[in-house]
Amino acid sequence: MNIRLSLTIRNILLIFALTFSTEIQLIGQSVRKDFFLPDVPGYFTLKCDFHLHTMLSDGTVWPSDRVKEAWRDGLDAIAITDHVEYSPHKTDVTNDLNKSFDLAKAAADKYGIILIRGAEITRKMPPGHFNAFFLKEPNALRVDSVMDALKIAKAQGAFIIWNHPGWKSQQPDTIKWFPRHTEIYNLGLMQGIEYNNSTESYPVVFKWALEKNLTLFSNSDTHAPIDFEYTMGKADKRPMTIVFAKEKTSEGIHEALLDHRTVVYFRDTLAGDVKNMEPLVRQMIKVTSGKLVSSEKKTATVQISNTSDFPLSLCLVNSAQKVIPKVLLLEAHSTLALNLTDISFPDSKGGTITLHFQINNVLINVDTPLRYSVNVNFE
Amino acid sequence: MNIRLSLTIRNILLIFALTFSTEIQLIGQSVRKDFFLPDVPGYFTLKCDFHLHTMLSDGTVWPSDRVKEAWRDGLDAIAITDHVEYSPHKTDVTNDLNKSFDLAKAAADKYGIILIRGAEITRKMPPGHFNAFFLKEPNALRVDSVMDALKIAKAQGAFIIWNHPGWKSQQPDTIKWFPRHTEIYNLGLMQGIEYNNSTESYPVVFKWALEKNLTLFSNSDTHAPIDFEYTMGKADKRPMTIVFAKEKTSEGIHEALLDHRTVVYFRDTLAGDVKNMEPLVRQMIKVTSGKLVSSEKKTATVQISNTSDFPLSLCLVNSAQKVIPKVLLLEAHSTLALNLTDISFPDSKGGTITLHFQINNVLINVDTPLRYSVNVNFE
Amino acid sequence: MNIRLSLTIRNILLIFALTFSTEIQLIGQSVRKDFFLPDVPGYFTLKCDFHLHTMLSDGTVWPSDRVKEAWRDGLDAIAITDHVEYSPHKTDVTNDLNKSFDLAKAAADKYGIILIRGAEITRKMPPGHFNAFFLKEPNALRVDSVMDALKIAKAQGAFIIWNHPGWKSQQPDTIKWFPRHTEIYNLGLMQGIEYNNSTESYPVVFKWALEKNLTLFSNSDTHAPIDFEYTMGKADKRPMTIVFAKEKTSEGIHEALLDHRTVVYFRDTLAGDVKNMEPLVRQMIKVTSGKLVSSEKKTATVQISNTSDFPLSLCLVNSAQKVIPKVLLLEAHSTLALNLTDISFPDSKGGTITLHFQINNVLINVDTPLRYSVNVNFE
Amino acid sequence: MNIRLSLTIRNILLIFALTFSTEIQLIGQSVRKDFFLPDVPGYFTLKCDFHLHTMLSDGTVWPSDRVKEAWRDGLDAIAITDHVEYSPHKTDVTNDLNKSFDLAKAAADKYGIILIRGAEITRKMPPGHFNAFFLKEPNALRVDSVMDALKIAKAQGAFIIWNHPGWKSQQPDTIKWFPRHTEIYNLGLMQGIEYNNSTESYPVVFKWALEKNLTLFSNSDTHAPIDFEYTMGKADKRPMTIVFAKEKTSEGIHEALLDHRTVVYFRDTLAGDVKNMEPLVRQMIKVTSGKLVSSEKKTATVQISNTSDFPLSLCLVNSAQKVIPKVLLLEAHSTLALNLTDISFPDSKGGTITLHFQINNVLINVDTPLRYSVNVNFE
Repeated sequence: MNIRLSLTIRNILLIFALTFSTEIQLIGQSVRKDFFLPDVPGYFTLKCDFHLHTMLSDGTVWPSDRVKEAWRDGLDAIAITDHVEYSPHKTDVTNDLNKSFDLAKAAADKYGIILIRGAEITRKMPPGHFNAFFLKEPNALRVDSVMDALKIAKAQGAFIIWNHPGWKSQQPDTIKWFPRHTEIYNLGLMQGIEYNNSTESYPVVFKWALEKNLTLFSNSDTHAPIDFEYTMGKADKRPMTIVFAKEKTSEGIHEALLDHRTVVYFRDTLAGDVKNMEPLVRQMIKVTSGKLVSSEKKTATVQISNTSDFPLSLCLVNSAQKVIPKVLLLEAHSTLALNLTDISFPDSKGGTITLHFQINNVLINVDTPLRYSVNVNFE
Repeated sequence: MNIRLSLTIRNILLIFALTFSTEIQLIGQSVRKDFFLPDVPGYFTLKCDFHLHTMLSDGTVWPSDRVKEAWRDGLDAIAITDHVEYSPHKTDVTNDLNKSFDLAKAAADKYGIILIRGAEITRKMPPGHFNAFFLKEPNALRVDSVMDALKIAKAQGAFIIWNHPGWKSQQPDTIKWFPRHTEIYNLGLMQGIEYNNSTESYPVVFKWALEKNLTLFSNSDTHAPIDFEYTMGKADKRPMTIVFAKEKTSEGIHEALLDHRTVVYFRDTLAGDVKNMEPLVRQMIKVTSGKLVSSEKKTATVQISNTSDFPLSLCLVNSAQKVIPKVLLLEAHSTLALNLTDISFPDSKGGTITLHFQINNVLINVDTPLRYSVNVNFE
Repeated sequence: MNIRLSLTIRNILLIFALTFSTEIQLIGQSVRKDFFLPDVPGYFTLKCDFHLHTMLSDGTVWPSDRVKEAWRDGLDAIAITDHVEYSPHKTDVTNDLNKSFDLAKAAADKYGIILIRGAEITRKMPPGHFNAFFLKEPNALRVDSVMDALKIAKAQGAFIIWNHPGWKSQQPDTIKWFPRHTEIYNLGLMQGIEYNNSTESYPVVFKWALEKNLTLFSNSDTHAPIDFEYTMGKADKRPMTIVFAKEKTSEGIHEALLDHRTVVYFRDTLAGDVKNMEPLVRQMIKVTSGKLVSSEKKTATVQISNTSDFPLSLCLVNSAQKVIPKVLLLEAHSTLALNLTDISFPDSKGGTITLHFQINNVLINVDTPLRYSVNVNFE
Repeated sequence: MNIRLSLTIRNILLIFALTFSTEIQLIGQSVRKDFFLPDVPGYFTLKCDFHLHTMLSDGTVWPSDRVKEAWRDGLDAIAITDHVEYSPHKTDVTNDLNKSFDLAKAAADKYGIILIRGAEITRKMPPGHFNAFFLKEPNALRVDSVMDALKIAKAQGAFIIWNHPGWKSQQPDTIKWFPRHTEIYNLGLMQGIEYNNSTESYPVVFKWALEKNLTLFSNSDTHAPIDFEYTMGKADKRPMTIVFAKEKTSEGIHEALLDHRTVVYFRDTLAGDVKNMEPLVRQMIKVTSGKLVSSEKKTATVQISNTSDFPLSLCLVNSAQKVIPKVLLLEAHSTLALNLTDISFPDSKGGTITLHFQINNVLINVDTPLRYSVNVNFE
C-alpha cells in the first residue's frame, strides 16, 4: 500500500501545485459519441469517407462542416471530391476546385481530421465517374478528354478509383466492365473501386476487386448534410472505407491504399479480403467466461463480448460444419451468454473446446460470411 | 507481409479443421449491454449490490432472478439479504433463510456471478437494520437480542454493516449516531455503512465513514423487480458498491471490504476516499489529441475521451485554482473537443501543458469534488 | 377575445380557490411510456395478454408484479394462467390455483388493469395445452380426464382456447390438427387458438382460425420477468392479443372474444381478419399534406403520418396493382414526405388522387399483406 | 354488423378498383419524428424559428437546407434573417439579401413550411440587432442610419423585434433598456423581443415583454447546421417561438404576432403570458383514471397522461397552497400513476376531487410556474 499511497500523494500535490498554465479560457466545446473499431496488430484502424461534395459543386454543405461532420461521426480522414465538370451553383458561388479543400483545412487541423485534396472526374458511362485523391491542383483536370484528365491526375501523384460502377442513373439495368475500363486499368489509372456508394451496393464489384487486386472502397457520396441521410447513433450509419495504416497521416493512408489494406462498412455489414478482415474481427470478439454446468449432461455456458461499436450477427457452426440457424446478435459493447449442450469435454472438469462461428454480417467474398473459431477454457 | 499471410492461412486452416467439438447444440441465449468501469492497477474493479430482497421475505422476486438481473446489469457480485425477523409471505412461501441463497446458486454458477450468503437483522432504531455477509447459517440469527444476533453473525465470520442510517421511515427528521452504535462499533460488529440506499443518500455518513474508517456501501435494497425501479440503459442506474479486489472471488471481495477498498455509485455520482477514487478516474479519462491552433493567439484544441460507461461532468480549473463555470459533459464512450485560449505555451511549437479539472460528479468528501490534472502534449 | 379572456380568468380563479381537497399526500409514483393504438369506430382497442405464469406454478414472478408489468407495458387486461397439473415449486410455495388471481387483484384494482381468472390445462399432445378464461374455481379442473377438465371449465362459463398448437417441445417437426381436436371443437370446447405464442408463430393456425371462425390469440406465455424477454421501448415488444370491446370491462372482453373481434400483435406485425384489421389501420394513418410541385412534370409531395406507436412498413402500389419495391418505414409518431412523379392530375391545379399502399407488416391472411387506399387532395 | 361489413367490402372494392392514378413513381422519401404540441381552442399551435442564418451571410448552411432542417424538427414556419451589413463570405458567395429566401422557396413549397422573408439589422449596442419579418426588399435596408433602416422595414410592412438584448458579446455584464430603445418602441419600430436566443435566456426581458405588451420570441439564431447544436430526439431541442394562429399561413402568423399570441420554448421550458399558456397546457394533460383504493384510509390512485411531446415536470399542491416537494416527471406520451393518501372524499364511494399542480417547467412570469387544477372522478 505504501507505494500506492505515495503515488496518490504525488498526484494530489500535482493537482494543487501552481503549474505552468496561466489564465486558460474555454471558448467552445463539441461532443461526439465514439464509434470504436479496434486497431489490429501492426496497423491503426482508420475510418474514412473518400467521396464527399460541398456547395462548391452540387452539394449544399460548407467545406469546413464536412470536417465537423466527420469528427462527429468518429472518422479519421475524408476526401472532398467536388465535380470537376459540374458547377450548378456557379451563379452564386465560386467554382475554384481548390476552395473546398482550402475552406476546410483550418477545421481539419483543429479537429485532427486528415483532409485529402480530391476531385471527381464526372463523365458519361463509359467510363463513368472517377475520384482522384492526393491531388496537387484539381483545376488542371478541367480538360476535354477523360483519358487526359486521368493522366493529369496520375502525373500529380493521385490514387484513382472508379466510382459507383452500377449507379442506377447511369446503368439502370446492369453493371458492366467496358473495354474502356480495361484500357484505364492497364494504364494504372484505376487502383481502387467503390463496392458501396451511398445506399447502393454492387456485389460483382467485390468479385472484380478480389480478382484484379483493386482496393475496395465504401463511400457516402453525400451532397446533403450527413445528418439528413444517416444517423450515427443508430443502425443506419454512413458508409465508410476502413483503412489499416502504419501511421495516422495522409501518407500513411496513401501507402495503405496502394497495399490494398482496406475493408468496407455499409449498413452494419463489413466486407473485404479475409487477410484484412480476420485480424479486425479477432480484436472485436472476446470470450469472457466458460462455465461447465454439467459434464454428465454435457452442458456449459459461454459468455462472449463485443468490445467494438460494430454489432455482430453470429451463428454457431458445429463440428460437421453445419450452421445452427438461430441468430445470435452480439450488439456493440454487449455480452452474450450462450447455454450449450451435447459438448464432448476432454475430461470431467471441462478443459478447452474450440467453438466455431459464422459471422453473418462480415463478408470475405460475395455471399461468403467469415468463419471464425475461438478457444474456450471451461472451469 | 509474409508472416502476416501465413498467420492468416493458419487461421483459415484452424477454422475448417475438424476439431474436438461434436454436435454442439444451442439451448438458450441472454444478452446484456455492458456497463464498463475499468480495472485499476493491482485490482479488479467489481460492481456489487450487497442488499437485495426476494419473495422469501418481503420482496416479490424469485432468488435466481436476482442473479439474472445482476448479470443483465453488468454486476460481478450480489448478496441476498432477506429479513431475519420479517416474513409476511409465510402463509404461501417458505421462510427458511438459507433458501434464498440455495435457490439462486445454480444461476450464479452458470452466469459467473459471485453470490454471497447474507441476511438483514431488522430492528427498531437504535440500532436499526444491519446486513451480515459471508454467513454460514442465517437461521441461527433468529434470536431475541440484537446484540446476540450481531455476535452470532460475527462468530460465523460475517462482515457486518449498518444499513440506511437515515432511512426516512425510521428517522424522519434526522440522522443520529446513537450510543448503541458506539457500542456495536467498539465490539467490531460494524465494519461498514451504507452511504446510499435505494434513492436516499446520507452525506453525514460519508463523513463518519472517512473518520471511523468504515467501508462505504451503496446498495439498492430492492424488493421489486429491478427493472421496475432502475433502467440500466439510462441515467438512473441501480446503486452499486464498487469493490477493488485482488481476485474475482467471494474471498477476494471479503479481503477488499476488510481493507476498505470500495467507492460507491448512485445516480451518476461516484463517491469515496481519494486513494480509492483517483486511480479509477485516471483509467477513465484519456487525452486523445492536443492541437496547437495559434501560438500567437495562444489558442489550442484538446480532445479528451471517456473510455468508461460512467458519464463524467467536468469543469476546467485555471492556474489560480478558479473553476471555469461552464460544465463539460463527457458522456460514456464519448469525446470532447475543447477550444481553449490564453494558454502560455512553453515555446512557439507548443510543448506540454498541464490541464486541471474538477470532476463535479466524483466526490472525495462531503461536497468535495475530485480535482484532477492531466498533461497534454500539443503538436 | 372577450369570451376567451373571461374563461381564462375563471380558470385562474379556479386555481387559487380553496377547493374541497385537504392535506393530500403523495405516497408513490410509477411511470410508463405509453404504447398507443387508436380506438376504432364503435369499439375500444384493448391490449391484452391472455397467457402468463407466476411462481405459483413454474414461473418466477409474483402475481401482483404481473399486473405492474402489464401496466408498464401499456396493457389493458391480462389473464394469469398457471398450470393446473404442474407445480414444481410446491415444496416452497403454495399451489392453490386461486392464489395467483387473489394475490394480484389489489394491484389490478389500483392500476386499472382488467384481471381475468384463468388456468392452463396442461396435457401431452394430443390435445396439448388449453387455456380457460373467466373461471370461477380453477382448482376444480384438477381431474384425470382432459375432456372432463374442459367440460368443467365450460360449465363454469369459461372461454377456452388451444395454446401453441405447434410448440416445438411437443411437435418438433409439424403442426397437426388431430381427431381429438375435431372432437373438442365440435363440443364447443375450443373457441379460440394461439396463432402466436412467445417467439413462435404458426401460419397454418391463421388459416385454421379464418376457416373455422376461431378467435385469434397472440400471448407471451412468459414464465420469467417480462423485461428479461421483451423491451417495450424497442422493436421486440411482448406479444399481445388486441381486442375490440364495447366496454373496458371483463364482460366487454368476453363478449368481444365470443364475437371474434381480435387481431394479434407479435414482433412488429399485426395479423387478423380484414374486417377487424382495416378499421384499425384507418385510424393509424393520416394524410397530412398533398403539395403539387409541377403539374407539367406530374410531380407532387405527399406527407403521411403515423398517429400510433405501431411502426408501419409500406410500399406504394401503382394503378396496375404492381408493388413499387422501395420500402417506406413510417415509424411511430412520425411523418413521411414522399416525392412522387408520373401522376396524372385531374386538372392543372391538382385535384384529388387515390394512392394505394401495401402494408407489409399487417397481414389479413397467410402471406397476404393488407392493401389500403387513401385519397389525397393536392393544393 | 351488417353495416360494418358492407363498409369493409366497399373498402376492399376501393382498393382493387382501377382508379384514376397512373404509373405513379417514387423519387425520394424523407422521414421525421414528430414533435407534437396540441392545437388550442380557436387556434393552430405553430412551431416557428424566426432567426436563422445561411452561408449567404456568416452562416454555413444552404438556404433550402434550413427548410429541410425545419421540417425534420417538426416546425411549421421559419424566417431566414441574414445580416444586412455583414457578409464575410462575399469573396466566394453572392450577398444579394433576397437570395436566401429565393433559394429556399421551392423546398418550402414542397415540404409545406411557411417561409418568411426576413433580415437582421446588425448594429452596435445601442440599439443592437433587430430582425424584420415579412419584408418585400431586404436589400433596401442597406443604409447608414439604423433608424432609417428600421423605418424602411416598417414602410415595407415588416414586424420588427429586438434580438438577444443581453447577448454576452455585446452586453457582457448587464442587460439594459437604453433611451434609444424607448425611442424605437415609441415609434412602433419594436413590436417583439427575444426572451431566449440560442443558449442564452434573459429573465428581465420576460418582465419587459409582459409590461410593455411586446410579443415574446425564442429563436435559435443558428449559423451552423442545426444538428451540430441541437438534437430533436433528446432533451436539448432547438429554441422555438410557439405561435397561436387562426390559419396556417404567413398572414395567419403575422396576425398572431400583432396580437401577441406566442409562448416560447427553450431547453424543455415553456414561458409566456398565462392567457396564452393555460389553454396549451390544458390540451397536454389528461386525467385518464381515478381509482378509490380505500375510503377508510383515504387512499386513491390517479393516472395522468401527457398527450404531447413536451415533457412536464409537476408538483402536487395541497389545499393550503403548499407545494409537495417530490417532483413528478410526466414524460412525452407517458402516464404517471400517483398513489395518494389523506384525501377527504365527498362520500364513501369516492366522488369528484380537484387536484392542484404546479407545472415547474411552464412559466407565466419570471420565476413563476403555472398553477393548474384538474377535476378527478374517483370510481
